[in-house]
Amino acid sequence: MVMGVPSKPLLQTLMGQTSTIPPIWIMRQAGRYLPEYRKLRAESSSFVDFCLNPKTASEATLQPLRRFDLDAAIIFADILLIPFAMERDVRFVAGEGPKMRPLKPGQSLLKMERAWSLDKLSAVGDALARVQSALADKVALIGFAGAPWTVATYMIEGGGSKDKWRSRLWAWQNPDEFDRLLDILVEASIDYLHMQAKAGAEVLKLFESWAEGLPEPFFERFIIRPAKNIVAGLRERGVYLPIIGFPRGCGGLAVRYANETGITALALDQAQDGVWFSQNLPKETVLQGNLDPAVLRVGGAALQSEVDRVKKNFSGRAHIFNLGHGITPDTPIEHVERLVQLVKETR
Amino acid sequence: MVMGVPSKPLLQTLMGQTSTIPPIWIMRQAGRYLPEYRKLRAESSSFVDFCLNPKTASEATLQPLRRFDLDAAIIFADILLIPFAMERDVRFVAGEGPKMRPLKPGQSLLKMERAWSLDKLSAVGDALARVQSALADKVALIGFAGAPWTVATYMIEGGGSKDKWRSRLWAWQNPDEFDRLLDILVEASIDYLHMQAKAGAEVLKLFESWAEGLPEPFFERFIIRPAKNIVAGLRERGVYLPIIGFPRGCGGLAVRYANETGITALALDQAQDGVWFSQNLPKETVLQGNLDPAVLRVGGAALQSEVDRVKKNFSGRAHIFNLGHGITPDTPIEHVERLVQLVKETR
Repeated sequence: MVMGVPSKPLLQTLMGQTSTIPPIWIMRQAGRYLPEYRKLRAESSSFVDFCLNPKTASEATLQPLRRFDLDAAIIFADILLIPFAMERDVRFVAGEGPKMRPLKPGQSLLKMERAWSLDKLSAVGDALARVQSALADKVALIGFAGAPWTVATYMIEGGGSKDKWRSRLWAWQNPDEFDRLLDILVEASIDYLHMQAKAGAEVLKLFESWAEGLPEPFFERFIIRPAKNIVAGLRERGVYLPIIGFPRGCGGLAVRYANETGITALALDQAQDGVWFSQNLPKETVLQGNLDPAVLRVGGAALQSEVDRVKKNFSGRAHIFNLGHGITPDTPIEHVERLVQLVKETR
Repeated sequence: MVMGVPSKPLLQTLMGQTSTIPPIWIMRQAGRYLPEYRKLRAESSSFVDFCLNPKTASEATLQPLRRFDLDAAIIFADILLIPFAMERDVRFVAGEGPKMRPLKPGQSLLKMERAWSLDKLSAVGDALARVQSALADKVALIGFAGAPWTVATYMIEGGGSKDKWRSRLWAWQNPDEFDRLLDILVEASIDYLHMQAKAGAEVLKLFESWAEGLPEPFFERFIIRPAKNIVAGLRERGVYLPIIGFPRGCGGLAVRYANETGITALALDQAQDGVWFSQNLPKETVLQGNLDPAVLRVGGAALQSEVDRVKKNFSGRAHIFNLGHGITPDTPIEHVERLVQLVKETR
């Protein structure tokens, strides 16, 4: 191996190299569609405990790699571990998703900021180290965090929400305080991702899962600026790992996200037009995505033609094959096997 | 009045005329934020009965016009009246929204097609006629229908849904049958909008409320094609009224919608960048939108500066002022009064 040239396909692609066979990983590849995951999960009581136990988190991370020829492992964790480590009462209710006491305007952000303790998340570092030592040579390890707007909406709404109504009201009513909330999350995210890099992550990803429906003037202020600050903060601390940004649901605004935040790669959701992004983004921007999880669930001829179409959409560019959103629990394992096979075929 | 030149500001704008003061109406302007609406609604048992009683529907339509200096009335109805008139069991559950028995692949679409009866919706025509005779001279009357993809998702999911999962599965599994379902809805929509035009509607609007998150290859097939066919079908039947299309949540793909469907005006949601659309759409395309309903709820200085910004975004273009989504029930009436005042001010 030549010094400085990574031998892992995902890292080569993230350095801008093109290839006829794109590296592939799958959002939520460690998860409920795997019987071994469901078994492991059943042995822990709370989901937060499961994430913060290096043994279970590393095992869950490694499970899909034992089945499928994937090019990356992504550490098993949750985007709400940061609020948890700010002493917000994050809990996961089966069938309902995450819940917490809604954060209200005027509540002491200072208290939250002071409560923030990276030590509470040291288990994530331990899990990364365990995974790194167990990974095959060609598999890259991804660390991640939720992006500030998305994490803030969970904190303010008290869980997932259709239209982020309370967050939007707060942002209109007191944009400066909202900036302050996001700044606290920016700083925590830098700490957290820095720690993940030191622990063995080779790629970092920012999940802006709720970039959809955001009033347009907020996009610059509450999506782009925080992402830019996180990237800059990591670089200042000497973290030069590639960073994948995923502003899900923001349509064409993702061009601005890619061009203005300093991210290495842009992950697209299934609604975004791969051809258009291939044509309109600078060649330096690596693209990831964007097969519809629903066609993976369906399988068969539709899956085959969609895999071909997605590969073709990004041909000639540095491209990481992935879904446009997480794999769903009802997806048959054979469809995932077939997907990996189809992506790795040259026809 | 010179022959052929409409004196109503909304119709002038829809003919491409620009003005320093844009015409304004508000999505869901007849609705729960008005005490007189809540009172009227409480007198009817079911929501479908309320919509299909010309007296209550016309009264609800007229209520906001008595309070605010708006440039349009939109007939009080629901996008699920078409499934109702196909004998699907549409019902509205308080606090949960619309519900119906989910339509399944393989179920006889023919049965649904045969059940379709425009007569079941004749009350909408009667309500339009009543409203038309009561409107002030300068106020235009809008009729509408749900666009086929959106209506199909409600039918398939059995109500509103976050990710339209079952609809996406069906569309991937059997796109030809899905086309057939949408074609049935296209034909019914043409009948229904034609009837509304004859009854006194001066503008028609297509609500594609769920254009978000749709896999990109479906956009052309299940959003653009049906809209184009509805526009063409209406023109074939001699309906030359202006048509506003509202593909909510589709980001930059709305450019294709505007350029390929034959609609007169494109309604933007609050996430869409007004400046970008102003610059990238042909001047013939009238734009509508796109104030965030949340800033109308908040009011005050934020409302004032946002109204200014939205007006400025579309200056020099034919523009209809509106929200990016419906007004919410918790919006104070004084904020609506202030909005109309701000839009009509020249500063």
